[in-house]
Amino acid sequence: MAEETTEAGTAEKSRTDENVIYVGHKPPMSYVLAVVTQFNVSGSDEVVIKARGRAISTAVDAAEIVRNRFITDAKLKEIKIGTESLTNEDGRTSNVSSIEICLTKKKK
Amino acid sequence: MAEETTEAGTAEKSRTDENVIYVGHKPPMSYVLAVVTQFNVSGSDEVVIKARGRAISTAVDAAEIVRNRFITDAKLKEIKIGTESLTNEDGRTSNVSSIEICLTKKKK
Repeated sequence: MAEETTEAGTAEKSRTDENVIYVGHKPPMSYVLAVVTQFNVSGSDEVVIKARGRAISTAVDAAEIVRNRFITDAKLKEIKIGTESLTNEDGRTSNVSSIEICLTKKKK
Repeated sequence: MAEETTEAGTAEKSRTDENVIYVGHKPPMSYVLAVVTQFNVSGSDEVVIKARGRAISTAVDAAEIVRNRFITDAKLKEIKIGTESLTNEDGRTSNVSSIEICLTKKKK
């Protein structure tokens, strides 16, 4: 999400970061568009949708909209849930739940 | 979901409805308590947490709290996501995402 200034595009090729869509507080359709673009324009055969906290339901919405309306041959490869510890400015730690939804599409 | 009038307790043993916790808009801890009770008091070795729409994040929170704090030997057996069509009073249909998180605990 950060450092996308100079060599971001090339440096990220080794990591799978390029295939990861981080879901936040925009409407689900914004992320649907990002996922569909990732599959169709970038030609990825796997896209991971990640979200934390309240955005988890938006992530599920986005994944379902992609599967049901846009890329009907996409499969749910894996769904993981977890907990992340976040420390805020005043040093307090809070736990937040997270989700990772991995969608795959067969190459034609 | 129906027929829990007379012989509910006994009749439901075959069905798994008893092991299903439906998550709504209460705080996650309410559902954590329900899940823990289901494992420890009712002696289930499998509990399914279900939620729709905005409650999906609460369901993930509840599952994570159970796993990390209360029943640390509980395993995530399966996570399913889906879409349900709801028809409201004035006949309009809307789609809502759903999640099912299946937790299992080994018998000691």
